[in-house]
Amino acid sequence: MNHVPDPCIFVLFGATGDLTRRKLMPALYNLHRDKLLPERFAVCAYARKPKTDEAIRQEMREHVTQYSRRAPDADWDALASRIFYVQGEFNDDQGYVRLKERLEQLDKELGTGGNRVFYFAVDSEFFVEITGRLAKNGLLVHSRIRHQPQTRDDHPRGWTRVVLEKPIGHNLHSARELLSNIAQHAAEDQVYRIDHYLGKETVQNILALRFGNCIFEPLWNRGYVDHVQITVAEDGGVGSRAPYYESAGALRDVVQNHMLQLLCLVAMESPGTMRADDIRNEKVKVLRNLRPMSIPQVAQNTVRGQYGPSAGGKLPGYRQERDVDPQSNTETFVALRCYVDTWRFAGVPFLLRTGKRLPRRTTQISIHFRVPPLQLFEDAPMLATCVGNVLRIDIQPEEGVSMDLAAKIPGAGMRLQTVSMDFDYARAFKRQTPEAYERLLLDAMSGDATLFTRDDEVIAQWEFISPILDAWAALPTPRFPNYPAETWGPDDALRLVPPCAQGWHLR
Amino acid sequence: MNHVPDPCIFVLFGATGDLTRRKLMPALYNLHRDKLLPERFAVCAYARKPKTDEAIRQEMREHVTQYSRRAPDADWDALASRIFYVQGEFNDDQGYVRLKERLEQLDKELGTGGNRVFYFAVDSEFFVEITGRLAKNGLLVHSRIRHQPQTRDDHPRGWTRVVLEKPIGHNLHSARELLSNIAQHAAEDQVYRIDHYLGKETVQNILALRFGNCIFEPLWNRGYVDHVQITVAEDGGVGSRAPYYESAGALRDVVQNHMLQLLCLVAMESPGTMRADDIRNEKVKVLRNLRPMSIPQVAQNTVRGQYGPSAGGKLPGYRQERDVDPQSNTETFVALRCYVDTWRFAGVPFLLRTGKRLPRRTTQISIHFRVPPLQLFEDAPMLATCVGNVLRIDIQPEEGVSMDLAAKIPGAGMRLQTVSMDFDYARAFKRQTPEAYERLLLDAMSGDATLFTRDDEVIAQWEFISPILDAWAALPTPRFPNYPAETWGPDDALRLVPPCAQGWHLR
Repeated sequence: MNHVPDPCIFVLFGATGDLTRRKLMPALYNLHRDKLLPERFAVCAYARKPKTDEAIRQEMREHVTQYSRRAPDADWDALASRIFYVQGEFNDDQGYVRLKERLEQLDKELGTGGNRVFYFAVDSEFFVEITGRLAKNGLLVHSRIRHQPQTRDDHPRGWTRVVLEKPIGHNLHSARELLSNIAQHAAEDQVYRIDHYLGKETVQNILALRFGNCIFEPLWNRGYVDHVQITVAEDGGVGSRAPYYESAGALRDVVQNHMLQLLCLVAMESPGTMRADDIRNEKVKVLRNLRPMSIPQVAQNTVRGQYGPSAGGKLPGYRQERDVDPQSNTETFVALRCYVDTWRFAGVPFLLRTGKRLPRRTTQISIHFRVPPLQLFEDAPMLATCVGNVLRIDIQPEEGVSMDLAAKIPGAGMRLQTVSMDFDYARAFKRQTPEAYERLLLDAMSGDATLFTRDDEVIAQWEFISPILDAWAALPTPRFPNYPAETWGPDDALRLVPPCAQGWHLR
Repeated sequence: MNHVPDPCIFVLFGATGDLTRRKLMPALYNLHRDKLLPERFAVCAYARKPKTDEAIRQEMREHVTQYSRRAPDADWDALASRIFYVQGEFNDDQGYVRLKERLEQLDKELGTGGNRVFYFAVDSEFFVEITGRLAKNGLLVHSRIRHQPQTRDDHPRGWTRVVLEKPIGHNLHSARELLSNIAQHAAEDQVYRIDHYLGKETVQNILALRFGNCIFEPLWNRGYVDHVQITVAEDGGVGSRAPYYESAGALRDVVQNHMLQLLCLVAMESPGTMRADDIRNEKVKVLRNLRPMSIPQVAQNTVRGQYGPSAGGKLPGYRQERDVDPQSNTETFVALRCYVDTWRFAGVPFLLRTGKRLPRRTTQISIHFRVPPLQLFEDAPMLATCVGNVLRIDIQPEEGVSMDLAAKIPGAGMRLQTVSMDFDYARAFKRQTPEAYERLLLDAMSGDATLFTRDDEVIAQWEFISPILDAWAALPTPRFPNYPAETWGPDDALRLVPPCAQGWHLR
C-alpha cells in the first residue's frame, strides 16, 4: 500500500461527462498538488467531439476551479501540459487506432512505459463495447497473455488496467453477463471496480479502528452487540439522475454496493494481513453468509418507500420530478433487516436504511451494544429504557467516532445519564481530508486493489439483492408515495428495529 | 441512596479549625442552597473559646464567602439562624454537659428528634477523648444498646453518628488500637470515616462507568489490561502541614487511604447491588488480595523521593520548609508497583505514584490495554512503540474520561496515529460539580455509608502499608533530596513501569 505509482497514462473515456467534471479531474489535480502522481504521467481524454488539447485543458481547469477542494494555482500548468485529447466514438475502431498511436507517441515523449489506466467514466451500457474495442485494437492485453513472449515489436509492454463504476448489472443475471464479457478481455487483476464509499477516509478508518485497537475486537460479536444500524441518508431528491434512477431504485443504487460494503467492514473477521485479497476474501465471506430471504421473509424484513411532496408543498414528490413517470413505483427509500450467519454475528440484526429526501445528508454506522446484565443504579435511564452503549462511526458529512456512555449525574445519589465520548476526524488531523476519488485513482495507478470490488464480491452482493427484487415484484407494491419529503421515511420502517432500541438511532 | 436526611443536629468539634473553614461550612451552605438539608436542622459548634451564637454565625459567613463555590446570598440567613455555639474543652465534662443541655433544648425548639451527627474536625489525637466523653455524658449511645428498652426518660431517642477524618492511626498497630477504642462506645454502623476522595464525582463515576456500561467489563481483566497507573500529583509543597506531615510522609498521607481506595474501585469485582456493604465487601476483597511485600520486594517495587529546591532556586526544598527538620528523611514522593492477586487481575501491575511539588496538580487513573495481537498496519506508531489503547479517568482538576485510539491518518496508505475520544464532565453536565464534602456530609446525615471507609477496610489498608513502612525503616534511606521541585519525581521511579509503556503516562 501507499506505493508511488509507476509512470503511466490515464486514459479517460467520458472526458466531458459529469463524473470527470466533478470528481476525476479535481482528484487528479489534488494528487498532482500533493506530488503523489508519478513524474512521468499523462492524461489522455477520449470523447466524441473534435477538440484541441488546449480546449480540453481549459475545460479541465474550469472543472477544477468549480469542484476541487483546492483551486488551481501555479501548479496547474505543469499538470495541464500533460493533458491530451483524442477524438473518437466509443464504437468506432478508427478512434481507437488514433488513440493507440497517440499513446505510443506519448510513451516515447514522456517515458510512460506503456502503462495504461483506462477509466470508463461512461454509462455502463458502453463498458463491454469499449473493452472489446480496446482489446481488438491491441490496447488491452489480457494479463494472462501479457506475460507470454510478445510476438509484435510494437506490442505495449507494461501493465493495462481498466477502472469502472457502478452499476455492474441490474440484477444477478446481468451482472454475471457483464463480468464475463469483460473477463474475456481483461483478467480480474486488471479490473478495478470503484465503489467510491470505500475511498472515504472514514470508511477505511473502520478497519483501523477494528484492527488497530485492542479494545473493540473483544466486544465485536454476538455476545456484546445487540444490533447494528447503517443509515445512508440523502437530503436531495433524484435531481438529474431520473433516467437512470427510474430503473434502478434505492436498493440497487445504494444498498447493493455501498451499504453492503459498509456491512462487510463491520461484520468481517480479522484478515491475516491487510493485503487486498486477504481483506476481500473476508468480505466475500460475509456476503456469502448473508441469510437469504424467501418472499415472506422479504415482506417481513424490508420496507420500501417513495417520497411525496414535503409537508408545506415546497418540495415536489418523486412522481413530480423531471423525467419521472407520474405513476412510477420506483423506491426512493428502503429499510432492510438482515442477518450475517457467521459464528461471530449469528442472530444479530443488521438494519440498513437509505433514502432520498430525508431530513439531512448523513451516513452513519452505529453499533448498539447490549444493556448491562444488572440494573445496579437507581433511575438509570439507559436501563429503564433498555438502551445500551452505542458506538457511532460518522462517515459523512461529519467524520468521527463517538461512544455513548452512561455516566454519573453530578450531585446526590447515583443516577446515570447517557453522555458521549467523541473523536472528531477533522479536529484531530488538522488537514483536509482527501476526497474518496483521490485515494481510489492513486490506488488504481499503484495496483492496489484493496478498495475495489472483486468479481466474486459483486456476484455475492447480487445473490443477496436479486431475490429481494424478485420478491418485491411478486409482492403487492406499497401505496406510493408513502413518506413526505424531509421526513425519515415511512413509519412502517420502525417495525424492523428491535423494541429495545427505541427506534432508529438517527432521527 | 439519595435519601432526604432525617431531622438532625450537626455537632461540630473543631468549629474554628481549617477543615470547618475551608470545607465543612461551605459544604453545609451549598447543601442548604440546594435544599438538600432536612427542614428541621441545626449546626451546633463546640470549641474552646467563649463565643456568642452571633459571633460564630458571622465567622461562618466569612468562611462561606471565602471558600464556598457559591457566595452567601439571601438564603444565608435561614441557615445562619440555625447555627449555635457551645463553649467547652474536649477533655472537660462540663462542656459536654452544656452541649447535652443545648442539644436537648434545640430538639424541643426545632424538632430534630434527638438525631445527632458528631463531626470530629479535630486532630486525630482527640478522637478517642471526645468519643469517650460523649459516651460518658450520655451523648453517644452505642447502637447495640439504643435498641434496648430505655431506662431513663431523658435518654435521647433517634440515632447518633460519629464522623471522623484521616489519619486513622499511623500504622497497623495504632490503627487497630484507635478503631477498638472508638468501638467501645460506637458500633461500626455509627462511625463514618471520611476519605474525601470517595466524595468526588469523578471517583464515584468510576463505578458508574464500570457497572453502568456494558463495554468496559469484558475488557476489564488480565486478558486485556496490560497495567494500570494511578497518579495523585500535587504542585504544592508541604505548606502549613509540616508538623503533621513530618511524621506521616506521602505513603501514609495519600497512598494508604486515597490511592488504595482508587485502586479498589478499579480492581474490584462487580457488587451484587450498590448497597454500602456490598460495595465495601468487594473493596476489602481487593485490599486483602494485595500481594504482600517482603523487604527485598519493597526495595524492588517502591521508590521514595523528597523534593529539593526547584531548578532556578525559586522554590525551597522540603528540608527548607517551615517546621521541617533540616535533616528530615520524610518522603514527599512515592511510587509503588503492586499486584492484586485476584482471578481478574493476577499479574497485572498497578503503578501508584504521588508526590508534592510535581509540575502540576492532577489526579488521573489510566488503564493501559494490551497492544493488538497483530501488527496489520504499516508504520503503525502504536505498535512500533508498543503502546496500546489507554482509558484515562481524570479525577481532578480536569474531570472526564477519554480513550486513546489508533485511527487512520488521512491520505494515501494505511498509517495509524493515536487520537483521543473524549468526554468532559463539566461540558456534558452544564452545572457546577458539587464538592466532595457536600456529598459526604449529606450521606452521613442520610445514613448511607457507601462512600465511607469501613473498619476492616482501614485494617486491610494498613496490613498492606505497614510492612512497607517497616521495610523502609530497615532499608537504607535514599539520599534525599532526590528530585528538584517542579519535576515528576526521582528518575528511579521509571524502573517500575513496564518497558512497553514508555514511562509514566502523565509526564
